[in-house]
Amino acid sequence: MFFASDNASGVAPEVMAALCAEGGSALPYGGDPVTAEVTALVREIFAAPEAEVALVASGTAANALALATLTPPWGAVFCREGAHVEADECGAAEFFSAGAKLVTLPGEGGKLAPETLEAALARFTPGDLHAVRPAALSLTNVTELGTVYQTSEVAALSAVARTRGLLCHLDGARFANALVATGATPAAMTWRSGIDALSLGGTKNGLLGAEAVVLFDPARAEELRIRRKRSGHLLSKHRYLAAQMRAYLADGLWLRLARQANEAAARLASGLSGLPDVQLQHPVEANLLFVDLPATLCRRARDAGAVFYDYGATGDHMTVRLVCSWNTTDADIAEFLAILR
Amino acid sequence: MFFASDNASGVAPEVMAALCAEGGSALPYGGDPVTAEVTALVREIFAAPEAEVALVASGTAANALALATLTPPWGAVFCREGAHVEADECGAAEFFSAGAKLVTLPGEGGKLAPETLEAALARFTPGDLHAVRPAALSLTNVTELGTVYQTSEVAALSAVARTRGLLCHLDGARFANALVATGATPAAMTWRSGIDALSLGGTKNGLLGAEAVVLFDPARAEELRIRRKRSGHLLSKHRYLAAQMRAYLADGLWLRLARQANEAAARLASGLSGLPDVQLQHPVEANLLFVDLPATLCRRARDAGAVFYDYGATGDHMTVRLVCSWNTTDADIAEFLAILR
Amino acid sequence: MFFASDNASGVAPEVMAALCAEGGSALPYGGDPVTAEVTALVREIFAAPEAEVALVASGTAANALALATLTPPWGAVFCREGAHVEADECGAAEFFSAGAKLVTLPGEGGKLAPETLEAALARFTPGDLHAVRPAALSLTNVTELGTVYQTSEVAALSAVARTRGLLCHLDGARFANALVATGATPAAMTWRSGIDALSLGGTKNGLLGAEAVVLFDPARAEELRIRRKRSGHLLSKHRYLAAQMRAYLADGLWLRLARQANEAAARLASGLSGLPDVQLQHPVEANLLFVDLPATLCRRARDAGAVFYDYGATGDHMTVRLVCSWNTTDADIAEFLAILR
Amino acid sequence: MFFASDNASGVAPEVMAALCAEGGSALPYGGDPVTAEVTALVREIFAAPEAEVALVASGTAANALALATLTPPWGAVFCREGAHVEADECGAAEFFSAGAKLVTLPGEGGKLAPETLEAALARFTPGDLHAVRPAALSLTNVTELGTVYQTSEVAALSAVARTRGLLCHLDGARFANALVATGATPAAMTWRSGIDALSLGGTKNGLLGAEAVVLFDPARAEELRIRRKRSGHLLSKHRYLAAQMRAYLADGLWLRLARQANEAAARLASGLSGLPDVQLQHPVEANLLFVDLPATLCRRARDAGAVFYDYGATGDHMTVRLVCSWNTTDADIAEFLAILR
Repeated sequence: MFFASDNASGVAPEVMAALCAEGGSALPYGGDPVTAEVTALVREIFAAPEAEVALVASGTAANALALATLTPPWGAVFCREGAHVEADECGAAEFFSAGAKLVTLPGEGGKLAPETLEAALARFTPGDLHAVRPAALSLTNVTELGTVYQTSEVAALSAVARTRGLLCHLDGARFANALVATGATPAAMTWRSGIDALSLGGTKNGLLGAEAVVLFDPARAEELRIRRKRSGHLLSKHRYLAAQMRAYLADGLWLRLARQANEAAARLASGLSGLPDVQLQHPVEANLLFVDLPATLCRRARDAGAVFYDYGATGDHMTVRLVCSWNTTDADIAEFLAILR
Repeated sequence: MFFASDNASGVAPEVMAALCAEGGSALPYGGDPVTAEVTALVREIFAAPEAEVALVASGTAANALALATLTPPWGAVFCREGAHVEADECGAAEFFSAGAKLVTLPGEGGKLAPETLEAALARFTPGDLHAVRPAALSLTNVTELGTVYQTSEVAALSAVARTRGLLCHLDGARFANALVATGATPAAMTWRSGIDALSLGGTKNGLLGAEAVVLFDPARAEELRIRRKRSGHLLSKHRYLAAQMRAYLADGLWLRLARQANEAAARLASGLSGLPDVQLQHPVEANLLFVDLPATLCRRARDAGAVFYDYGATGDHMTVRLVCSWNTTDADIAEFLAILR
Repeated sequence: MFFASDNASGVAPEVMAALCAEGGSALPYGGDPVTAEVTALVREIFAAPEAEVALVASGTAANALALATLTPPWGAVFCREGAHVEADECGAAEFFSAGAKLVTLPGEGGKLAPETLEAALARFTPGDLHAVRPAALSLTNVTELGTVYQTSEVAALSAVARTRGLLCHLDGARFANALVATGATPAAMTWRSGIDALSLGGTKNGLLGAEAVVLFDPARAEELRIRRKRSGHLLSKHRYLAAQMRAYLADGLWLRLARQANEAAARLASGLSGLPDVQLQHPVEANLLFVDLPATLCRRARDAGAVFYDYGATGDHMTVRLVCSWNTTDADIAEFLAILR
Repeated sequence: MFFASDNASGVAPEVMAALCAEGGSALPYGGDPVTAEVTALVREIFAAPEAEVALVASGTAANALALATLTPPWGAVFCREGAHVEADECGAAEFFSAGAKLVTLPGEGGKLAPETLEAALARFTPGDLHAVRPAALSLTNVTELGTVYQTSEVAALSAVARTRGLLCHLDGARFANALVATGATPAAMTWRSGIDALSLGGTKNGLLGAEAVVLFDPARAEELRIRRKRSGHLLSKHRYLAAQMRAYLADGLWLRLARQANEAAARLASGLSGLPDVQLQHPVEANLLFVDLPATLCRRARDAGAVFYDYGATGDHMTVRLVCSWNTTDADIAEFLAILR
């Protein structure tokens, strides 16, 4: 009953098999054939024949590299309160960008509204020498609260951003889960909706540790490559990142794993919603649930071995986050529900 | 016949087996039990019960994190010309440290001499407000030219450094090879010889991608942890770094693999030294060879499938680097020598 | 009728005379006798015999140097929404600190309340590796809205900050005006109320361009000196900064000039408050006024030559900021009021 | 007998008069009319109608802003050993550029030779992902050793730089002295010889504290303006920088003052060259002299009140630097020579 995070789950068997198959010797730093295959694969899947694909081993690296490539040191990056890039990466975006400023905006259910962005941008006078310069918008999809932006919502936000010349980043740590939830194509969810750079997550969805920055503007590709190297994120045995990503993207494994996680979450949500005094806090659209429940129930679940994180307390109630993963089993869910009943 | 680099070799079978064995779910970011075991193991092996152990996926990350933890932004870091941290990491040390200055010094056979360091330090007047501040010494062992510092040489250099308050870093991308070459203990080669922080390499010696910063001064441990997180180098599925490092250090696998590489290099050197018009450029003390040979021979080897890098040319002769690895076979060596004969 | 800003006013005659008197040759970079005198003078006035005094030519430099000396790159600096360091310095604090994060908090009338700070700090879990670290509090006195913190208010805020180990900075671009408004001593308004570093303004109060960072913790003095040099803010003909500051602080000139400005503002406020359809937005406690008035009046004043900045508009009303300075005359005020009548 | 540095001299009377004349109120941050005049004046003098002119109060600021505008964080900046930007600015270039690397090259008599630059550039393989990128050349004229580049020499160096895409910076802390020494026009010494950005010094030649970055590529102007603001170098009472620079450039004052300094140095050199056991170390082409003399003479001069800096010692001889300034008098020189005789 491990609901702490999807990065607590292990490596999907298909991915581990791919790692084991990668033997012998090969040129380091991405000079190997698997890396070339992955680039071709990503470009095909995203219908973006010129996209730059930079593999890294952590989501924070992917986000920070993407943002630093999109914004100058004096840029303002707009994101929602509680966005991972702002709240959970120890200032990585500021570090990689040499001091950009993250401007947080409120938003219902984990999502930004176009008007909120518009109002925030209106507070910056174009050409004002005294203020930082609006430079980028960063969205997260699946959001940190488990909700999902439709492609039309992404497009509406990026349209506002573009009126002021901002570039758009999508933190897709759970990108596959968002695709499964919306049925959108990778292209529709990204560049066709105005996204300039995507952090394409893999680690939370069955990889050992592999993410990709997918940069749709080839003019910035060289800068991204340099930034990756300079930050220590160009791995020498790069083919082992590539082997993970190839296994992930080939044959739709990434979507199958994400579907397993989303469906598990839906079953868990459905079970929880039948319980007295237990409340789901946001629509469960992907693989995360935020649940309000009595502290006694919470304790009982933990005593029985369930693992999950707290997200607040009011009176004798707790809010907890439950995350389903590709390896969450029906048995896990049934056991957890049984405890709460 | 892959002599390009030891990071071109694959993953040692024992290490891949350890990765495969790491299933189920576990707390992310190092909250898992394997990580705790690795810390204990490193402390035991280095006889350093308070050392901080920070696993990362690349050698550049290890070096840059270590140096940034040892020097302020206005610090000068002294190293040899051609040191990896200076020449091959795209300014990572400058980036992580927010602008420290790497001061390069000449040195015979890849090694710094204490007098050279002393003279360089003498050019900095203590308290001079206009100059950066001497802050750290960075040595590489095995050196970039394949030679090896004895522990007494490390101690002599760190002693000079300490007279001016510098902290000492050892880039041990090939640390196991240096231990095998010298017979020194890990403690003798590091803190007992005045080293404050070690980049303990694994990737070049059979790991998939795992290195450790071993920091002997616990007062700086929290800063190192923060810097790792902030730079995107704290991997979420951290246990897969830890599983590699545990397999590597437990039962002496690291030394066995390094010995294989060093011995292969010795055999290759011995074979080459018998060839007319072929010259070894530096003493072959570990697993790297620098060889001067006719350009025609060089071409012939490449045509036959040998892979290696050039390091210069004079007239009709080339200098090439040959690197042996844990997976270099006798057959590789015999075939290569046969081509050259 | 120049009410745009107090930095639009010229140089007080006493200060210009001091500059003219500074002839001949003298050691550069603060090695001159006037600089030593200024340090002694500041220490005496602040009853802080060990304080470090670093003169610079701009308020942004003073603020950014002070904050960078108080916080690590991964620190969070708490300040009020609209604080000059956050909104008007183009990210200088982020630049100087190598990426610290400014966290903005709401506050009535330009002032932070202790409970607001307390609540903000409570959102940071001690030791949380994923978040930046609460490191500093930055207050502005006189505030950006022209109100003034009493020493007890500063002390209450710094007390909250200290419970979490934060250091405290005071942006005193209009410090003299705050002293005059409150009657507090320099020591009471700073270190006796928990302030660790003060940006002591001079430029807005009659100097040509001179501010001081006054650092009450001598342990950080060397770092401040290095940061000033490295950022190009250690002027070579430093004695001309020192000559300004000596003229300013000796014989109470700074307080006389500030009193002139505050009294002019009081007279202006009193005149405005008698006008129909004209509203003061905040208590006028120092030399800044925020005035709500009909757009037609606003236009009429500008047509007659008055200079001031807009701060918003609602319907047919404008909000404007009026700043009085040491050189604001009774005639200016009378003329301005006459136009509005 | 103040020969320590030209920044030890005071403010030229014409400049102080200009400051005194600048009264009343005016818009801050360069919104005043004097600033506009200075921009027009510089453009006219340099025959560069689109040049961006950014005034700052220190030479380190000018150099660091110029270099940061010309190079990315991963750029290599080539300069001579002992260049002020490398040796005397406490890493300002690294700080402003977020970590660029200064690569020092040897050079006779304070001057770089084109072949030396060519050889250094040849060590960087284009597109090498592991190394920093050659980005800029920084020359100093008058050099740190008091010699002077002819315009043809500047052009030859910049031509080499351009073959590899480098931009060229000229540290002109003593630019007027170089013009006087060579008879070159401002345009010939800068953009017509391939210079992209000039640090135009004023402080060492009679100003209180004012320098200008003159940027000949208008495409980078906005970045320069932002960098100046963000680093605290946009002074609020900017007109007092502008007033200095206007007085300096109008009517050729800058060249008159520089001629006085150069001529004084020539007279001093001539007097010294007649002395036994006293040796000039480099051609005296501007206002700096490096003199080898017996330590006893050196002591005698200091005992008599002469002020100057040491630059080394061999046996019983010292090397000292003597700097003449616009305010060096014949009496100073005569007295100094008399002591040595």
